[in-house]
Amino acid sequence: MSEQREPMARFYSVIPAGGIGSRLWPLSRASAPKFLHDLTGSGQTLLQDTVDRLIPLSTEDRILIVTGEAHRLAVLGQCPNLQPKNLVLEPSPKDSTAAIALAAAILVKREPDVIIGSFAADHVITDTELFQEAVKEAVAVASTGKIVTIGIEPTEPSVGFGYIKSGDRISDSPTAREVVKFVEKPELSRAKKYVRSGKYLWNAGMFIAPASLLLEVLEDTEPELYKNVMLLADAWGSSNQQSVFESVWPILKKIAIDYSIAEPASDIDLVAVIPAKFGWHDVGDFAAIAELQANGKRNHLAILGDVKVITDKSNGILISETGRLVALIGIEDVIVVDTPDALLVTTKEHAQRVKDLVDSLKTTGHSEVL
Amino acid sequence: MSEQREPMARFYSVIPAGGIGSRLWPLSRASAPKFLHDLTGSGQTLLQDTVDRLIPLSTEDRILIVTGEAHRLAVLGQCPNLQPKNLVLEPSPKDSTAAIALAAAILVKREPDVIIGSFAADHVITDTELFQEAVKEAVAVASTGKIVTIGIEPTEPSVGFGYIKSGDRISDSPTAREVVKFVEKPELSRAKKYVRSGKYLWNAGMFIAPASLLLEVLEDTEPELYKNVMLLADAWGSSNQQSVFESVWPILKKIAIDYSIAEPASDIDLVAVIPAKFGWHDVGDFAAIAELQANGKRNHLAILGDVKVITDKSNGILISETGRLVALIGIEDVIVVDTPDALLVTTKEHAQRVKDLVDSLKTTGHSEVL
Repeated sequence: MSEQREPMARFYSVIPAGGIGSRLWPLSRASAPKFLHDLTGSGQTLLQDTVDRLIPLSTEDRILIVTGEAHRLAVLGQCPNLQPKNLVLEPSPKDSTAAIALAAAILVKREPDVIIGSFAADHVITDTELFQEAVKEAVAVASTGKIVTIGIEPTEPSVGFGYIKSGDRISDSPTAREVVKFVEKPELSRAKKYVRSGKYLWNAGMFIAPASLLLEVLEDTEPELYKNVMLLADAWGSSNQQSVFESVWPILKKIAIDYSIAEPASDIDLVAVIPAKFGWHDVGDFAAIAELQANGKRNHLAILGDVKVITDKSNGILISETGRLVALIGIEDVIVVDTPDALLVTTKEHAQRVKDLVDSLKTTGHSEVL
Repeated sequence: MSEQREPMARFYSVIPAGGIGSRLWPLSRASAPKFLHDLTGSGQTLLQDTVDRLIPLSTEDRILIVTGEAHRLAVLGQCPNLQPKNLVLEPSPKDSTAAIALAAAILVKREPDVIIGSFAADHVITDTELFQEAVKEAVAVASTGKIVTIGIEPTEPSVGFGYIKSGDRISDSPTAREVVKFVEKPELSRAKKYVRSGKYLWNAGMFIAPASLLLEVLEDTEPELYKNVMLLADAWGSSNQQSVFESVWPILKKIAIDYSIAEPASDIDLVAVIPAKFGWHDVGDFAAIAELQANGKRNHLAILGDVKVITDKSNGILISETGRLVALIGIEDVIVVDTPDALLVTTKEHAQRVKDLVDSLKTTGHSEVL
């Protein structure tokens, strides 16, 4: 066995940049998904925020993005320093296992001992330092042969996230714990019990592990998918890449990495969690963006976009891409999203139902605005 | 004294087409006021509806419109058969007395015994036959030397209208009564008393009277304004029209005809009222349009404009001029008005406050959208 590199020297950031974000229609579209928007008012997109957060950990040269072919130009435009070899393009969305396993397989061929960390392109994280500390600890634990997730200490009994039940402390690590199990988004009463117990953390979907270990688990749990991903990785960058992708990609199984790798691995005590206190949000709907923007202030009207606004006794969120004057009078918890070809008006209470509406648009012949 | 013509042969309709309708912003603008919009879904503007209602009473040749110079082309476009001599253009808005008295003075010079009926260009009337019957009775009563108003029998204790207290029946007329007094928009408790009494009618701002009588009263109550109006009428159509208008118009007193003529005349028992049962509305705000469109149906979403709409548990009113897709989710009593350069979102409860917002636009440098 050759001498091992330091864990952080082995680290590679992987950013799966997929998912349209139907609950954020009409801002987020098939052609301009969530990660290509500035949903925080930071002045740059969520993808750029994500990259910026990872550069100090893995360096800019060791960030790999997996995204749809349709977003190639947009992603390159936002990440001008991205190395061409570090942009993996998916012909169609095949869920998170395919995206992350393909990245792992491509990277493990370059560096057999690579440790990858997978971080969604469309999450919001406040307190970058705490995030980076958590990732560093996760990488150290991963180097001992673990799949490590970062769990967010819950600030409320959210029913919008899955939870991670943490177990015993892992020795030689400042905060890491074994993962007992992953649990799905709970009902409110159960969520309250989780939070009270002190053992449950929000599952932020961040996984840090030796790429080879991820692939080993996948070979065991989803051998067909593993085989196909390895075929794709072997073809990647070769002369027969196109023909292999054309034949293999369509038959890839769609499955979330939680089911294919994280949960099965936790059953055999392979998964650890770093409890983390940084602010994290998956900004899944407009209500979440409004809350994020309000930052605890009550009766706040969040405004995103270069928009002239006249308001009177209104709060919630206004997002505008049109430059029109917008007047809001006496509307509580309103959500107004003003785009050139579509206008959404709803309230925070109904933010989750935007997805149903997008589904109905598909079936009613309005796909031009999706 | 020469032989008198039949009352209806003396009748001339006057339509003051003024008033921006601030409460209907951003639909109604200085450049496209309320009367130039289809607020009923009839397929034509309120002005056209008004003209159509009056043609059977006065014939198309005997309809005179008073409007702002800025609206000349729009009015001619909508009333292609309007005789040039029957279009009076105001250099600037000077309230209803100036508009109606000038029309009266111009017409009385043409026909000394003319009876004019003044009807706003931007009201909605359902049941045209009842309206026409009421006007005919009003003209007959006016021919006996009265100023006659048409009072609407209230269907609810509205606080949005002024009221007319009716008195004794007038003999030789099927329904006419003396007017005891005009009262301003009441508080709700008082409005309820008015309605319970059975004596009070909504003041719909319709006045039918011999033009000479209106001018006589005005000479008495507002001699300066009377003198100026007569100067304008004398100059009307003459070679010095422009110079007289330039010198006199700016100094005209702004006063509503209710204060200058109707109320003072009622004090000397000169005013009669025809109680009428036709549906009438001044569609003063978007809530009124929504109610008009709902026509008693609960949870109705009124839609005006050629707009694609996806709704889920929403009611109120949507008016769109942009052709954009509009999605409304879970909003009660919403008012959405979508125009190319301005968007309004409010609720029926706050419909009256749109005017305040328009006022604030004036003071905050957004006059380009007024």
